[in-house]
Amino acid sequence: MQDISRYPVPALQDLPADLRATIEAVQEKAGFVPNIFLALAHRPDEFRAFFAYHDAILERKGNLSKAEKEMIVVATSAANDCSYCVVAHGAILRVRAKNPLIADQIAVNYRGAELEPRQRAILAFALKVAERGAELEESDYQALRDHGLDDDDIWDVGAITAFFALSNRMAHLLHLKPNPEFYAMGRELA
Amino acid sequence: MQDISRYPVPALQDLPADLRATIEAVQEKAGFVPNIFLALAHRPDEFRAFFAYHDAILERKGNLSKAEKEMIVVATSAANDCSYCVVAHGAILRVRAKNPLIADQIAVNYRGAELEPRQRAILAFALKVAERGAELEESDYQALRDHGLDDDDIWDVGAITAFFALSNRMAHLLHLKPNPEFYAMGRELA
Amino acid sequence: MQDISRYPVPALQDLPADLRATIEAVQEKAGFVPNIFLALAHRPDEFRAFFAYHDAILERKGNLSKAEKEMIVVATSAANDCSYCVVAHGAILRVRAKNPLIADQIAVNYRGAELEPRQRAILAFALKVAERGAELEESDYQALRDHGLDDDDIWDVGAITAFFALSNRMAHLLHLKPNPEFYAMGRELA
Amino acid sequence: MQDISRYPVPALQDLPADLRATIEAVQEKAGFVPNIFLALAHRPDEFRAFFAYHDAILERKGNLSKAEKEMIVVATSAANDCSYCVVAHGAILRVRAKNPLIADQIAVNYRGAELEPRQRAILAFALKVAERGAELEESDYQALRDHGLDDDDIWDVGAITAFFALSNRMAHLLHLKPNPEFYAMGRELA
Amino acid sequence: MQDISRYPVPALQDLPADLRATIEAVQEKAGFVPNIFLALAHRPDEFRAFFAYHDAILERKGNLSKAEKEMIVVATSAANDCSYCVVAHGAILRVRAKNPLIADQIAVNYRGAELEPRQRAILAFALKVAERGAELEESDYQALRDHGLDDDDIWDVGAITAFFALSNRMAHLLHLKPNPEFYAMGRELA
Amino acid sequence: MQDISRYPVPALQDLPADLRATIEAVQEKAGFVPNIFLALAHRPDEFRAFFAYHDAILERKGNLSKAEKEMIVVATSAANDCSYCVVAHGAILRVRAKNPLIADQIAVNYRGAELEPRQRAILAFALKVAERGAELEESDYQALRDHGLDDDDIWDVGAITAFFALSNRMAHLLHLKPNPEFYAMGRELA
Repeated sequence: MQDISRYPVPALQDLPADLRATIEAVQEKAGFVPNIFLALAHRPDEFRAFFAYHDAILERKGNLSKAEKEMIVVATSAANDCSYCVVAHGAILRVRAKNPLIADQIAVNYRGAELEPRQRAILAFALKVAERGAELEESDYQALRDHGLDDDDIWDVGAITAFFALSNRMAHLLHLKPNPEFYAMGRELA
Repeated sequence: MQDISRYPVPALQDLPADLRATIEAVQEKAGFVPNIFLALAHRPDEFRAFFAYHDAILERKGNLSKAEKEMIVVATSAANDCSYCVVAHGAILRVRAKNPLIADQIAVNYRGAELEPRQRAILAFALKVAERGAELEESDYQALRDHGLDDDDIWDVGAITAFFALSNRMAHLLHLKPNPEFYAMGRELA
Repeated sequence: MQDISRYPVPALQDLPADLRATIEAVQEKAGFVPNIFLALAHRPDEFRAFFAYHDAILERKGNLSKAEKEMIVVATSAANDCSYCVVAHGAILRVRAKNPLIADQIAVNYRGAELEPRQRAILAFALKVAERGAELEESDYQALRDHGLDDDDIWDVGAITAFFALSNRMAHLLHLKPNPEFYAMGRELA
Repeated sequence: MQDISRYPVPALQDLPADLRATIEAVQEKAGFVPNIFLALAHRPDEFRAFFAYHDAILERKGNLSKAEKEMIVVATSAANDCSYCVVAHGAILRVRAKNPLIADQIAVNYRGAELEPRQRAILAFALKVAERGAELEESDYQALRDHGLDDDDIWDVGAITAFFALSNRMAHLLHLKPNPEFYAMGRELA
Repeated sequence: MQDISRYPVPALQDLPADLRATIEAVQEKAGFVPNIFLALAHRPDEFRAFFAYHDAILERKGNLSKAEKEMIVVATSAANDCSYCVVAHGAILRVRAKNPLIADQIAVNYRGAELEPRQRAILAFALKVAERGAELEESDYQALRDHGLDDDDIWDVGAITAFFALSNRMAHLLHLKPNPEFYAMGRELA
Repeated sequence: MQDISRYPVPALQDLPADLRATIEAVQEKAGFVPNIFLALAHRPDEFRAFFAYHDAILERKGNLSKAEKEMIVVATSAANDCSYCVVAHGAILRVRAKNPLIADQIAVNYRGAELEPRQRAILAFALKVAERGAELEESDYQALRDHGLDDDDIWDVGAITAFFALSNRMAHLLHLKPNPEFYAMGRELA
């Protein structure tokens, strides 16, 4: 099991109870355990903070759909060349969007993807946060308001991007490998 | 049929006989016609030169396997953010390599892909040709010879890269869309 | 108080008790409340996850000194052009290192800073994680081991960098302003 | 004769008849044989496809003048730091434009060259195709239509750029040297 | 005294009389001798030309305030990662602007600094000259005229930037170290 | 005469006597007045400092040949896309090196130019100073010492590069045009 990460991957029975519970729940729900859970379990405090942060932003109720949140993850993770996040969240995006083509389109070049103008604006903002956030200016925020996002939705766009700026770098540090299950998930044409 | 390209896509019956024959042959063999054939048919002379060039390098017998040639296409097309070429040749790579995971791995970050050292060296050379060919120096060629490539194999690596530098830019110019068939092709786990 | 962030900054008495306690403790200890605490209080769940993550990595016991951890923060935040983090953590670095010059040196160009070779290696690794983590390879890890870091210390270098990749982008998103107190802190020559 | 290319340069008498005829025709017309003909003769099939492609786009009748086509070659080849193409096509541009200064101006910085607004727009489009074609959008095409180009002319701009994206990389791969004759050609002040 | 520069630093008594006079005057006025004077004294002719150039542009009377001139120095020197110039001119900027915070703000990211719109426009122009001067176009000049600068003021903005393009590179070449006095200068809150 | 610069070009008779003398001397020697002299005459103090600096470094006796100094100017000015400096100093380089081909080779891609290893090392160092001087390290200096340069020669390489970092930006600011005479100068094959 070692080769999913450069770092030791603890056995399930050696983990603190809360981590084990989290992992068993995701196994129950997804049918397998995404490698990020196993790899981060090497550091329980960071595991807890990571998933608390993840849930706080990914599960907040606002005006972004679940598919749109995953689009942000895929587009910014592709900009960071992060295999784990593109493959794993590409799968989730296909499922959420019920669209077998959209993840690959966004991963290579979102400009040519079949998206609504609002989604294109969201990804343009997210990529600016990911790549040159120091240059954000008033007009960038206005572009999202013009598509019906409120200020807290914009925080969501930025916060998801920021969180995956962290995730992508952790995946690089650990040389984290995507589970084989993710590659084919959600690819059935409707 | 128009929306596969920004440019007019001619009807099959309006094409010169040799183009029609080429297209019918690929339809016969693949079960569908890749959009690049239809889109380039707008300019028959360029169609002929494009596929003559493609076949001259992709079908030359040498020490590169068919899968290795497709790896070069996927890696350099990803560096150029070319959706058509990454999706279409990613499919062909999966089939040629009999590996459902390899194309996505190379498209996001070949450094983390499950490759042999020789293949890693080939892709490093190809990406240097694609992105900063003016800096090629003797040691770059030697690195490939150290993995058993001869000078004509190295020409193949460079020529495939150069040809897809052209193809990627034509796909961008035309806003060429990949056929839906490509996305799922070759993804069955063995 | 609004102008420390683009987003609403809640009044202390309106906050959940745990956030208020955290903020009062930092006020007690530092003599003022760093603006990041007030700005993130707009989203209590993210506040909690952010500081839990921060403490998990910044306070882990290992072979990195407190000053070295702050060097990583300043160098990578400067690479991201993040005013809040460079100014606030520059202050903390001056205090931790008992060196009034080191923060400005690292913020502009760590290569010319008065550092030990080990520290220079740590910052080179951190900047690679920050800017092109996809290219990390075995020799990068070995360079840190050669300076006496073990694998968990290297995780710390990477994780601090990854966490501030997130922090820098949140600061950009919020247009977070540094407290005036930070600018002069720790500048007295010994 | 070897030192015009890293690869073997075949003797004229050893070439297939059609290549020899092509080379003799260009010798007849130009007074010397440009090195690209000799260097590519190492691979006859690629030679044929290369020049068929070249002629298909460079000789198509449309609304681009011959000088404008060469401007595209020089500007994009300079962006790729390709000595052979800048020197050889700089010469052809001087001849076609009957202007001894224009090639050097475009090679260094087309923005300061003495060009018509239409030509400036053509080069801006060509450089976008050459350097970041994935970002082409509707407004880029419209900018050329505003200067009287029709959609097929725009294809020409893009196709010439794409073809020299290939040529430049082949010249880099071969370390192809320009013929000395090209440097001074067309430099007489009128 | 050697360690302020990679190159020999001559003793004051060994210098030509005019250099000694210049250095004694700056010592008298500032209370210490900035290291640039000592380091450049290794080459008296270049010392003379350097300070003649410096004075010609920094002391010209026009519509730029002394503080604005130092803002240009700090912003462009930060873009070039020049420790000496950022630290030394950051100090002068704090004194000139009577603002203890402004230099650090500009050094990290001028977009978030507390500046007037006119100053923001000046720094945008200066950074374009510093980083991609070949792309300057009419609209860049007009943006400064819109804020009340005349053509000679614009020359000043460009010439200060150009002069520090030289200074920054000389500081890099010499590995010039800032005097410790500069770090804390002008940091007292009013 | 205006169109050689965006700024006013004074008539010769309106200039201070020393500038007029300088200009008449260069006219006498070269047969024409390079536009940089006329354009900078708009600001006599800067004119004096500019040419004093120029002569101090370009005319210092050391181990760099006059041709090698011009190679540095052409290579770094090409990296900065400066038409005036590439065209004017390209001409001087051809004359100094008695080589009609060398300037164009260096301007496009010095790696492929016909140079001695020592000259290649000089240009690599110069381009590092021009483009990322903050990263200069001991091994860069040693590489030049290995080719027989002493520390003052290395200062010359860096100082010429630094001076043209200034010159290139002034030429951009002024939209300075090269004299037509420069384009063809020194192109006769020996």
